[in-house]
Amino acid sequence: MSPDPDQQDTAAMPQTSAVPDPLDLEAFRGNAHALVDWITDYLAGLDSRPVRESVEPGEIRNKLPDCAPEAAESFTEMLADLDRVVVPGLAHWQHPGWFAFFPCQSSPPSVLGELAAAGLGVQGMMWATSPAATEIEAQVLDWLVDLLNVPQRWKTTAEGGGVIQAGASTATHTAMVVAREACRQRSGASAEEMVAYTSSQAHSSLEKGALLTGFGHIRLLDVDSDFAAKPEAFLEQIAADRRNGLTPAFLGSSVGTTATAAVDPLPALGEIARSEQIWHHVDAAYGGSAMVCDEFRHHQQGLEIVDSYTFNPHKWLATNIECSVMWVADRRPLIETLSVKPPYLRNPASDSGQVIDYRDWHAPLGRPFRALKLWFVLRSFGAEGLRQMIRNHVGWARGLATRIDEHPRLERIAPVHFALVSFVHNDGNAATDALAKAVNADGRFFVTVSEHQEQRFVRVSVGSTWTTKRHVEQLWDVIASNA
Amino acid sequence: MSPDPDQQDTAAMPQTSAVPDPLDLEAFRGNAHALVDWITDYLAGLDSRPVRESVEPGEIRNKLPDCAPEAAESFTEMLADLDRVVVPGLAHWQHPGWFAFFPCQSSPPSVLGELAAAGLGVQGMMWATSPAATEIEAQVLDWLVDLLNVPQRWKTTAEGGGVIQAGASTATHTAMVVAREACRQRSGASAEEMVAYTSSQAHSSLEKGALLTGFGHIRLLDVDSDFAAKPEAFLEQIAADRRNGLTPAFLGSSVGTTATAAVDPLPALGEIARSEQIWHHVDAAYGGSAMVCDEFRHHQQGLEIVDSYTFNPHKWLATNIECSVMWVADRRPLIETLSVKPPYLRNPASDSGQVIDYRDWHAPLGRPFRALKLWFVLRSFGAEGLRQMIRNHVGWARGLATRIDEHPRLERIAPVHFALVSFVHNDGNAATDALAKAVNADGRFFVTVSEHQEQRFVRVSVGSTWTTKRHVEQLWDVIASNA
Repeated sequence: MSPDPDQQDTAAMPQTSAVPDPLDLEAFRGNAHALVDWITDYLAGLDSRPVRESVEPGEIRNKLPDCAPEAAESFTEMLADLDRVVVPGLAHWQHPGWFAFFPCQSSPPSVLGELAAAGLGVQGMMWATSPAATEIEAQVLDWLVDLLNVPQRWKTTAEGGGVIQAGASTATHTAMVVAREACRQRSGASAEEMVAYTSSQAHSSLEKGALLTGFGHIRLLDVDSDFAAKPEAFLEQIAADRRNGLTPAFLGSSVGTTATAAVDPLPALGEIARSEQIWHHVDAAYGGSAMVCDEFRHHQQGLEIVDSYTFNPHKWLATNIECSVMWVADRRPLIETLSVKPPYLRNPASDSGQVIDYRDWHAPLGRPFRALKLWFVLRSFGAEGLRQMIRNHVGWARGLATRIDEHPRLERIAPVHFALVSFVHNDGNAATDALAKAVNADGRFFVTVSEHQEQRFVRVSVGSTWTTKRHVEQLWDVIASNA
Repeated sequence: MSPDPDQQDTAAMPQTSAVPDPLDLEAFRGNAHALVDWITDYLAGLDSRPVRESVEPGEIRNKLPDCAPEAAESFTEMLADLDRVVVPGLAHWQHPGWFAFFPCQSSPPSVLGELAAAGLGVQGMMWATSPAATEIEAQVLDWLVDLLNVPQRWKTTAEGGGVIQAGASTATHTAMVVAREACRQRSGASAEEMVAYTSSQAHSSLEKGALLTGFGHIRLLDVDSDFAAKPEAFLEQIAADRRNGLTPAFLGSSVGTTATAAVDPLPALGEIARSEQIWHHVDAAYGGSAMVCDEFRHHQQGLEIVDSYTFNPHKWLATNIECSVMWVADRRPLIETLSVKPPYLRNPASDSGQVIDYRDWHAPLGRPFRALKLWFVLRSFGAEGLRQMIRNHVGWARGLATRIDEHPRLERIAPVHFALVSFVHNDGNAATDALAKAVNADGRFFVTVSEHQEQRFVRVSVGSTWTTKRHVEQLWDVIASNA
């Protein structure tokens, strides 16, 4: 069965010329051109599809063979299966009628960046293993410091620095590990004795991160009527925990919570963290992108005394998943905690101390060239294009909020700091659920429902790259006619 | 500065028609076609470039502006910068002369899969948020169970299941967290009292994972003359740790260690783990791909009593980074440990218990559609194409090993289980380092050096997708002429 390797030239030469050669570059060129056309047409046609396809559990698997093919298939078959298998089984996150969860944006420049990164196929675990991947990442994240007006010390050219993590969950977990080690060194406490603090409205990644990190306790503290953290609740809980012999280790605040996009009072929480010697991490996964515009920056006052921060260009800055920016005010504890240096990775550049080795800035070792898509996005939109997108989304969301406020049967339950509108039907949970169900049954729109203290509410998150004012207006028509 | 949102239709409409619109789909089509041609030409031209470009720290950053552009740039400028900035700053991982580290493979079908996933832009955190992403992943990983002949119970249709993780580091860390929680429930021990065991030759991710997980201790135990773990060393250390009041929690074994691709004795280590009630995780990041061929499967005997396992299609199965497969023999402890269910993610499909929600199988929440590229690769190569590639690489590596064995001044230090050849110059460390330096100075090849107990050795890892027999022969010529 095994041909003599000595008789072979390329590594995967087909057995017969009738079989497609997966390494034929001219075939790749043609296949890729065909796929580019398919993708362009898919995106152009989204508006005429349902935002979610109707599919039952197991339906997709039933369309697939029971085992991998023995012989190579041609790309024509895969392209056909995008239409036969994949598209009929998707929820179309890039659909202009996507108002669910938070956006997971993509954009043409970002797709080009993903394609370029995939084609180059480099792995940037260290500067030496592809200097351009490291230096473009460092430079672009330094650009973002100015673009978002976050503290200058977060630049790699100052004391801090940025790194692209896979997601905000990962960034938050990474911050928690650094916080745990800092706390251990300072206090001698065990992880089991440590406490993480955040609000009840923080993203589930705070709870999951605390679990991964091994913190003995996480406090999900009560919020105010705007769903924002209450500093006094943190102070009281910290004092109570200290009385019980526990050690506060981590404080997580949010700029744009998941349920209602609430903003925590960063200055007050930051002061508490500083005076109590607790690591202060800010999860701005959603809200952070808005800071390209000056008018939202009052929501990020207090960052000067923050230890770490994350926001997701893959939510609302036109960049494909995965792309989450993590900044630290001081890169030393991050690197000291995460640096493991086996002999097979030693190289002169690392030994010189003159370069960034991003393997020491995150949990994994290997890493794709994620900065490329972010670089393409920032250049293709320009700062003004990104501001325009954010302002449009916020403007349309606030327009929707005004209509909800004017409607006799609907009630908004949270401020519209960004582009998320949260509201209820006055007739209660069943009516709220029924309204969301009716809106989604239309097929053109997808909204999600959450709940707070047993009150169900509809979330309309404006932020798909392809959403236009018309889509928001049509969504309102469907809401109003079903309310 | 902010135009009236009510006057805008699309979200990022340019200020003037002279500015390129990043959301113009027909422009995207043309840009993507141009980029496809650029990538094809880049890959076709790699053989005539140096495998690593000559670049000094800071050189790439100096080519970039100090801040993000205010106005949108055209893609023409980005395409030009791939040539001006990016390519001159890379180590070309896809170069046919890449013999460094382990391969980080890419292939044309995988690039197509990356492009398709980027274009679709879906986020598969739950079945409901894109059923096809979940079901294709589950089905393709079940295919791989048969293709690699790993235990049937690892299928999602049985008790276990597979999930694509970003990398083996992440998979190993995830396994450690599950092991920690299982140990805590069973023994009541704190993480600080727990011990992880592996060999001194295990990948650095074992040490880093133990740090992230918060294990109080990790034992990097001595190996035999073939760099494989010694079961008796594990038994002795476990007994000593128990006498000292510690709790063994995790045992990591390797199929293809990083330094020399050694294989640990899985059956013996598995028996130890079972009798001592320790979680047994196998890191087959490198070696696992070889199991498409029957003749390597004696290296994976003993998997029947393993708890978790990881291997990287992004190393040696023609799939772009990131793509690491993680299997568990029993999915319940994984899901029970990692499941966090906030109200904003509730949906009928999840509530029904009939679907896989991959958010509960890994640390992050959001996830890209990584299964698409793996699906494309398995179909485009077919099982026989993948076997052919592996057999060629191993055959060429063993041919090189024979020549090294016959050379009077060179000595191989480890068996060639797969496609990694490790050897020294008989004149000692300085001569070994000088040899590697001379080989790399040629420019056509990149080999790396590691060390074991202060002995430096050269690693030749055959496995770039584009390597042919000719490249291995030319590499040998350069080695021989410099030895």
